Amino acid sequence: MTNARVAILGATGYGGGELLRLLLRHPKVDIAFATSRSREGVPVGAVHRNLDGLTDLRFSSPSVAEIAACDIVFGALPHGASAEALAPVVLDGARVIDLSGDFRLRDAQQYRAWYKREHPYPDLLARAVYGCPEANRDAIRSATLVASPGCFATAINLALIPAASRIEGTPTVVAMTGSSGSGAEASEGTHHPTRSGTLRPYKVLGHQHVPEILQLARELGSELHGLEFTPVSAPLSRGIVAVATADLARRATTEELVDAYAAHYADHPFVKVVTSREPECGPVATTNYVEVRPRATASGRLHVTCAIDNLVKGGAGQAVQSMNLMLGLAETMGLDWPGTWP
Amino acid sequence: MTNARVAILGATGYGGGELLRLLLRHPKVDIAFATSRSREGVPVGAVHRNLDGLTDLRFSSPSVAEIAACDIVFGALPHGASAEALAPVVLDGARVIDLSGDFRLRDAQQYRAWYKREHPYPDLLARAVYGCPEANRDAIRSATLVASPGCFATAINLALIPAASRIEGTPTVVAMTGSSGSGAEASEGTHHPTRSGTLRPYKVLGHQHVPEILQLARELGSELHGLEFTPVSAPLSRGIVAVATADLARRATTEELVDAYAAHYADHPFVKVVTSREPECGPVATTNYVEVRPRATASGRLHVTCAIDNLVKGGAGQAVQSMNLMLGLAETMGLDWPGTWP
Amino acid sequence: MTNARVAILGATGYGGGELLRLLLRHPKVDIAFATSRSREGVPVGAVHRNLDGLTDLRFSSPSVAEIAACDIVFGALPHGASAEALAPVVLDGARVIDLSGDFRLRDAQQYRAWYKREHPYPDLLARAVYGCPEANRDAIRSATLVASPGCFATAINLALIPAASRIEGTPTVVAMTGSSGSGAEASEGTHHPTRSGTLRPYKVLGHQHVPEILQLARELGSELHGLEFTPVSAPLSRGIVAVATADLARRATTEELVDAYAAHYADHPFVKVVTSREPECGPVATTNYVEVRPRATASGRLHVTCAIDNLVKGGAGQAVQSMNLMLGLAETMGLDWPGTWP
Amino acid sequence: MTNARVAILGATGYGGGELLRLLLRHPKVDIAFATSRSREGVPVGAVHRNLDGLTDLRFSSPSVAEIAACDIVFGALPHGASAEALAPVVLDGARVIDLSGDFRLRDAQQYRAWYKREHPYPDLLARAVYGCPEANRDAIRSATLVASPGCFATAINLALIPAASRIEGTPTVVAMTGSSGSGAEASEGTHHPTRSGTLRPYKVLGHQHVPEILQLARELGSELHGLEFTPVSAPLSRGIVAVATADLARRATTEELVDAYAAHYADHPFVKVVTSREPECGPVATTNYVEVRPRATASGRLHVTCAIDNLVKGGAGQAVQSMNLMLGLAETMGLDWPGTWP
Repeated sequence: MTNARVAILGATGYGGGELLRLLLRHPKVDIAFATSRSREGVPVGAVHRNLDGLTDLRFSSPSVAEIAACDIVFGALPHGASAEALAPVVLDGARVIDLSGDFRLRDAQQYRAWYKREHPYPDLLARAVYGCPEANRDAIRSATLVASPGCFATAINLALIPAASRIEGTPTVVAMTGSSGSGAEASEGTHHPTRSGTLRPYKVLGHQHVPEILQLARELGSELHGLEFTPVSAPLSRGIVAVATADLARRATTEELVDAYAAHYADHPFVKVVTSREPECGPVATTNYVEVRPRATASGRLHVTCAIDNLVKGGAGQAVQSMNLMLGLAETMGLDWPGTWP
Repeated sequence: MTNARVAILGATGYGGGELLRLLLRHPKVDIAFATSRSREGVPVGAVHRNLDGLTDLRFSSPSVAEIAACDIVFGALPHGASAEALAPVVLDGARVIDLSGDFRLRDAQQYRAWYKREHPYPDLLARAVYGCPEANRDAIRSATLVASPGCFATAINLALIPAASRIEGTPTVVAMTGSSGSGAEASEGTHHPTRSGTLRPYKVLGHQHVPEILQLARELGSELHGLEFTPVSAPLSRGIVAVATADLARRATTEELVDAYAAHYADHPFVKVVTSREPECGPVATTNYVEVRPRATASGRLHVTCAIDNLVKGGAGQAVQSMNLMLGLAETMGLDWPGTWP
Repeated sequence: MTNARVAILGATGYGGGELLRLLLRHPKVDIAFATSRSREGVPVGAVHRNLDGLTDLRFSSPSVAEIAACDIVFGALPHGASAEALAPVVLDGARVIDLSGDFRLRDAQQYRAWYKREHPYPDLLARAVYGCPEANRDAIRSATLVASPGCFATAINLALIPAASRIEGTPTVVAMTGSSGSGAEASEGTHHPTRSGTLRPYKVLGHQHVPEILQLARELGSELHGLEFTPVSAPLSRGIVAVATADLARRATTEELVDAYAAHYADHPFVKVVTSREPECGPVATTNYVEVRPRATASGRLHVTCAIDNLVKGGAGQAVQSMNLMLGLAETMGLDWPGTWP
Repeated sequence: MTNARVAILGATGYGGGELLRLLLRHPKVDIAFATSRSREGVPVGAVHRNLDGLTDLRFSSPSVAEIAACDIVFGALPHGASAEALAPVVLDGARVIDLSGDFRLRDAQQYRAWYKREHPYPDLLARAVYGCPEANRDAIRSATLVASPGCFATAINLALIPAASRIEGTPTVVAMTGSSGSGAEASEGTHHPTRSGTLRPYKVLGHQHVPEILQLARELGSELHGLEFTPVSAPLSRGIVAVATADLARRATTEELVDAYAAHYADHPFVKVVTSREPECGPVATTNYVEVRPRATASGRLHVTCAIDNLVKGGAGQAVQSMNLMLGLAETMGLDWPGTWP
């Protein structure tokens, strides 16, 4: 089999940088295009310093037809811009994996409510498969348009999936994130002098990843009224740790929950159910791995802690995992970097 | 009025260091003793480097009688050791403020259950006043034994107090803390190579500050079954941010809650009810100030974020605040350092 | 004596924020104006979060005459803008302390060479006193225009002053700085995701603080050809540590050097000559204190390590120290905050 | 060719952990033993959390004969212990790569002077090859005992090698290091509350890596009197940046120096000579890559900045690079991880 040709749209950001890092070393993929209008002609290593000197690839600005001729097209653009750039490519027949939020919600009204804009291609929403391999692996294999989950959504999805059919009411989630989740553009929220010495809740009860989490949980059988989610900016670069508490339709013991999680994740190679220590983001940082630990509380609720890397499992890595499924490759191909400790 | 003479028992740790910093500059206090057996004779500036060259004080090892002759005795020893050292001083008639957990719980059985040891002086528990000025100001004024709250407990108490009479069920709290909360002794959990790159839940659903929070909330009218508390180690030195969610006896609006919090804290000079941004620990780090923001969730629950410095408002500062009350001084005396940003 | 009235021009940045923090608590000063055109009318606590709720002061935009009527005017504007704003005030008779680089160099050609612009008021350069109290205390007392030293320059000056008359050749200095030195504006160099995990030399051999260091050293008797200075961005918010190596006209022993430094700094209350450990920036962070340690190397050179806080001793604190001298107040007034450890 | 069998002695520390990470994924190597007396029988993933669930390997405590039967034996023990453990293995005929300082100095008196102990096997010193592939590649290929360079020494060696034949006098080096260089054991110097907010010189002018740097430089033709080296602890986990200044036998231009460095490193695949930005440790963290930039100063000295990861190129990675050479494999095999940015 010849290698698949892939394109990365919007390759100068952190999502694009991580896709480049993963795909440059992927044994069954060749990167045809890493697009950027503003940096056209610039070596990718001039922007992504870890790749400096390790590739001759340059940012380019190909036509829709050139992009659509690729086997897989990744979108790593901001939401809004992503749908505009990807829709023509989808309509031209390419298989697309979008890292933005533009195709995650099936309902264009939900999109308008949470993303504060009209969806430019609402007809495409029904075609999109939500790219969470731990829930939708088979659908991803045959998808033409994969909407890869958000970073917070990934951590919370993976915390809830094995128990989803039993969850009801309004779960409470607090999740802390590293600063790389805010992207490559410098901003007040990621200004080192203050970010390095504070913990700062933001978008409290109003983060745009809530509806995709609810949508998936309901598809898996949850009877939910809502999700009360508090994101917190933490002073590290990479990683998300989510702490989720949810009412269950019937009480469970910790042992039952651990068994259920272990059973569900037994054939999902990136998810580690840990029980002898707590999940934490350090050991999974820069990797596609997940650490998750479920418990029953004294009041009979489900309590789960879950740790991921926000840019890999919560972004580019999960997208490559979907690509592997779409191309019929081993799900872990190119994704087995174990991380470091420390 | 001549200055009060104070002693600090166990003055080499972080609690002791912050007491020294605050009391060396307090206009109405003289430090008679900063005790340490292992460092007797050593200048305090050799241990607390910020004080190097700024005081001639040395660690000493005075007798119980010498200690008990002080107007106020601070305990900054680990729990267990604290009760052993302070009880003779209390019984000798001194007024004592203990920063450890040894006198916070009225019930010796609760103490045994959470601190895994028999209380050596259970008869003294009834005499102790829980040193939260925002709840117990009058009782503190006349107290002879003040049990100063734990750092997490302080953040969670202050998040709940104004709504306490309406809270019921089992609140959920996630709180993140800086590493100085683990004390001055190097340990695996505060080893920089790993601590600086991770977020790590610990003592999940089992932290020893839970019973003192429940005890205070119930005294203020809460009908609670328990408290599901998840502490998280975060990679910064100072600060705690707590995110609390609780059921209310009757639904409230955010406006009502903000009014109630503003009304309660109107004459508590260290608590800022913020509404135009989120509480975060950076602006209150190294200070005795508190930032708190209440909200009603869509499901009618109370949601509060609260930020403190763990060593000051969550430790030495709050203890000095109690001292001021006990000595009839202005509550804010020596505690008006505004912190820095950044 | 009634309190002095002061103005702070450009009060929204980090220099302005630290001036506000120091001067709001200074017992002999009232802040008449904290100027900002873009934030006119906004409470200062909305920008400097540590001051939120602690002052009613708002940013304002007074006339030159109103500013010049103040007893002391601080300039906390970027270089270029600073001279433009301050010159009319100086010419109107006010006493001015400028934190920018605009009045530090006596020679307008040097200014052009290092700051890449024509000086707009070259005639004022001769009037300026370089605001280093450890070298120029008497001149500062009677100055009408004080050019407060740069942050790196402060650390390097204080490392060299006591030996200046014996230094020759081309000293080598490497100094590491916290991110707050880059100011309050978010930028690529202070973007948390990358800044938090790197050490990055910058402006290698070309930093604009070099000429003010050379100018002072020569005034103190150094016979220097130049200064080879490498600044390094480090992943912390506050602090500078400088490591300086210089040839001496005649060999010295470490003991001689320690004696000379101790003697020179004996009546300079903010400088601690440490010999039992190394200077480091943590213990002096947020303070006006300095730690310095001189040594003779095996090859007979002078080796000095020096630690300061970049925004206080390297900025606003040193400027307030000059103000105290200009107003005939105790040099340490309002500047005795000891910092924290940790 | 069947895979080589390797042993790692002292596999619980950070050096051992990085060897495990690299060698578990090396295509031509099987790990026979990861030794630890204190953790015998424990899964390696219980100590090195990044490997948790990714390998079944357990720490073991094999005999000298079992160890010596391996094709390559890595020593990752502290100095002193390392020579004791490795000498019998060497004498039993195994090929050994030692990460400690025990075999780096040819002269047992130098060893005594710098390591404060008698060398237990001085006769072996002459047999050791200093494992710097960028200087000694051919000698490493046929070596039976490789002394892998220290972390600081690696950064400084690589800064000086291409100019070594022209360097004279006493170079000055300041190098900053991440906390992982202090090892896996918690200690005061790596206690997060203080380490995270300070920059701290240590072992000033007395670091034990100085003699190995001098030894290599002299072998390459430098005429050196000494090396004045100031290490600085910086608040990040990984990375070293060295700033070196040295007198040259004859003046050079920056262009000449860049050409010389580019020429020397042209066939050394891990060294990047950068000229359009400064070397920094973030982009090479967790990798075996090096960034180096030479300059001529105005006074005609050599000025070099150099960045490495202290545990990989400065430790385990460089050792694996030597192993590849010893086994006749591609020098980069198993070492091509590009790192991440951020």
